[in-house]
Amino acid sequence: MPEPPRFSKGLDDIVVGRSTISWVGGETGDLVYRGFDVRDIVPGVPYESVVHLLLFGEPPSADPSPEVVREVAARRAVPPSVERVVDALPAGLPPLEALRTILSSLGTGAYGYPPTREEGFDLIARTPVLLARYVRRSRGLAPVAPRTDLGHAANYLWMMTGADPDPRRVAAVEGYLALLADHGMNASTFALCIAISTQSDLVSAATAALGTLKGPVHGGAPSRVSDMLDAIGSADRAEAWIRERLARKQVLYGFGHRAYKTDDPRGLVLHRIAREVAEPARLALAEAVERVALEALRREKPGARLFTNVEYYSAVVLEGVGLPRELFTPTFAVARTAGWTAHALEQAADNRLIRPDVEYVGPPKGRTWPRSLPGH
Amino acid sequence: MPEPPRFSKGLDDIVVGRSTISWVGGETGDLVYRGFDVRDIVPGVPYESVVHLLLFGEPPSADPSPEVVREVAARRAVPPSVERVVDALPAGLPPLEALRTILSSLGTGAYGYPPTREEGFDLIARTPVLLARYVRRSRGLAPVAPRTDLGHAANYLWMMTGADPDPRRVAAVEGYLALLADHGMNASTFALCIAISTQSDLVSAATAALGTLKGPVHGGAPSRVSDMLDAIGSADRAEAWIRERLARKQVLYGFGHRAYKTDDPRGLVLHRIAREVAEPARLALAEAVERVALEALRREKPGARLFTNVEYYSAVVLEGVGLPRELFTPTFAVARTAGWTAHALEQAADNRLIRPDVEYVGPPKGRTWPRSLPGH
Repeated sequence: MPEPPRFSKGLDDIVVGRSTISWVGGETGDLVYRGFDVRDIVPGVPYESVVHLLLFGEPPSADPSPEVVREVAARRAVPPSVERVVDALPAGLPPLEALRTILSSLGTGAYGYPPTREEGFDLIARTPVLLARYVRRSRGLAPVAPRTDLGHAANYLWMMTGADPDPRRVAAVEGYLALLADHGMNASTFALCIAISTQSDLVSAATAALGTLKGPVHGGAPSRVSDMLDAIGSADRAEAWIRERLARKQVLYGFGHRAYKTDDPRGLVLHRIAREVAEPARLALAEAVERVALEALRREKPGARLFTNVEYYSAVVLEGVGLPRELFTPTFAVARTAGWTAHALEQAADNRLIRPDVEYVGPPKGRTWPRSLPGH
Repeated sequence: MPEPPRFSKGLDDIVVGRSTISWVGGETGDLVYRGFDVRDIVPGVPYESVVHLLLFGEPPSADPSPEVVREVAARRAVPPSVERVVDALPAGLPPLEALRTILSSLGTGAYGYPPTREEGFDLIARTPVLLARYVRRSRGLAPVAPRTDLGHAANYLWMMTGADPDPRRVAAVEGYLALLADHGMNASTFALCIAISTQSDLVSAATAALGTLKGPVHGGAPSRVSDMLDAIGSADRAEAWIRERLARKQVLYGFGHRAYKTDDPRGLVLHRIAREVAEPARLALAEAVERVALEALRREKPGARLFTNVEYYSAVVLEGVGLPRELFTPTFAVARTAGWTAHALEQAADNRLIRPDVEYVGPPKGRTWPRSLPGH
C-alpha cells in the first residue's frame, strides 16, 4: 500500500536513493569515498587516483591512475570552436558564470543519454582548461596552452600563471581537489541528478549543477571567509568584530553545515594543508578568528552545534596557493566534476524521473476572468 | 519528534512546499493558475496577461496586461556584449543548448539574491529575442530587430521570420505559450528551486532549469511526436506501426504523464488550436494515430491509464505555425520562463536549502589504500 504523502520543504529527512559513491557521516564527522576515509587518503593520493576511485569504484593499479592520467591529459586540447566562445565572452563576466556558459556551449549534440565515463573525462579535463583560458583573457593575458606532462592540479596552476608551479602549491591544490571531489547528495549534485532523471545529458546536467553551486549557502561563500578575515584585520579585533556581528544577527562565514554536527573532516585536513602554503601571519589570523568565533557561537547559540566548515580553511588554502577570490568557487567546481560524473552515471544506471509534489494553497479552481474573452 | 527518514527515489509521494501558483489535478485532469482553469482562459487571455497573473497573483486591469506589455517590450533590446556571445556560438549548436548558453552569459553580476520580478521580466523578454537571433544566424540569415509594437507571441514569430506574422499563427503561439507557462513542481522548476534554495540568482537557476528541460522525459520530446508521425506516414499504416513498436517494448511519443491519469487539459485545448493552424492532412493523420494508439495502449497495457499528453498536440500546433522541430523545446522554454520566475520568487520568499539524503550502500569505512602514500 502506498504511504501517505510526506511534507518536507528542505528534504532533510528524505532519502532519494542508494549510492555507493560517498558517505557523509554528519554526527561522527566522516567523509568516506567508496570505503576510504578522506583523512586516510588526503594528502597523499593524487587527484587522478581519487577520480579513478570515484568513477571506477576501486583504487587504480598505480598512483596516479594511469588510465585517468591518459584520458584527462588527452582531452585537454579543446576545439577552436570552443575557444572562440571563450574569447567572445564579455571580460566582465564573473569566472563562475563564464565557466558555466562555456561548459554549456560544449553541448553540441555529442553528449547524449545515458552519460558515459568518457564524457565525464571530457568534463573533468576541460573544466580547468577552459576556466584558465577565460581568466587569463579577462585579465588581458595571452592564453597558456595545456601541457600533457603535468598532472591535473599542476596543469591548472600552469595554465593560470604560465609559470612552472611550486611543488608545495601543487600538493595543496591536489589535496583541495581530492577533498572536494564528492560529498554525497549535496544541492548541486542533486540538481544534476534531476537533470539526468529527465534523460538529459552530462553537459546539460553539469550546467544545472553549476547554476546551483553558485549560491552562498552551497559553494558560493568561501571568498566571503577571506573578506571576513580582511574586515577583521588583526587577531586583537576578532572578539569585538564577531560580537557586533552576532548582535546584528549576521552570519559568520565558514561556520555551520547542514550535514555536519561536529568538525567537518575536510576542514581538519585543509587546516593541515594551510600550514604548508599559507602566509604565516594570515594563518595565525585565521586560527585566532576561528578560536574566537567558535567560543562566541557556543556562548551565543548554545545547542546549535556550529563547527568550522569546509569553506573556512578552503579560503586560507586557496589564498595560499595564489588564487584570487573569484576563483574559489570555480576551483570547487573543478574538483566536483569528478563527483558529478560519478553521480550522473549512478543516477542513469537506475533512473527514475525526480518530480516531487507541492501542496496548492492558492485560490480554489473556478474563478472567472474579469473581462469577456475573444474566442469564447 | 522528527519523523523517521523516508525513502523515495522519484519523490512522487513527497510534498516539497506550499504554492499559490498552479494546481495540477492529475486524477481530474485539471490545470489551474491561481484559481483559473486554463481551459477557461485559453484561448482568449493574452500571454502577457497570463504572465501578469503568475507574477502578481491577480489578473491585470486590462488585456493584455499594460504593465507586462511595457516591461517586456522595453527589455527586448539586448546589450551588444550579449549579441557578441550569440554571434560567437558555433552554428551547429542545437538551439536549446545555444539558448542555455546565451542565458547563462547574462549572469554578469547584475542578477542577485533574492530574485526580483524585474529580473523575471528580463528573462521572459530576452529568451525569445536571443533565441531568434541565434536561430537566424545559424541559418546564415541577418538578424531581425525586435519590435515594441508587437505582443510577445507576435514578436517571437516576427523575429524568427522577418515577416509580419499571420494573426491565426500568432493566436496559436499565444495559446501555446499560455498553456505551457506553468505546471506545478515539474522537474525543471524543481531544479530551479534547488538553485534558488542555495541563494543562487535567477539567471543561474534558469540555466539549471534549461539543462533539465532538455531531457525527453520532461520537455525534450515533442519533436519526437513529429518524427513518429512522419515514420507512420499515413493513417492506414498506424495500426501495424504501433503494434510492432509496442511488441518491441518501445515507447509511443506523446502518451502518458507522471501526473495525469486522464486527459491532459492542455492537450485538449491544443487539439482545438491545432484545428486552426495545422495542415488538414497532417491533423487528420495525427487524429487517426492518436485513436489507434490509445486503443492499442488500452489493449496492451490495461490498467496503465495512459492518455494523450501535452506533447502530442504541441507538436501539431508548433508544426502548424511553421516552427522547425529543433525549436519545439526552446519554445516550451519561452513559455515556461513565466512559471520559472513565479516559482523562483515564491521559493525565495520562504527559503530553505533543499538537500536530501542518500543511503550509502558502498564498502564500509576503513579500507586501506593499496600503496603507501607520500606525506603519510
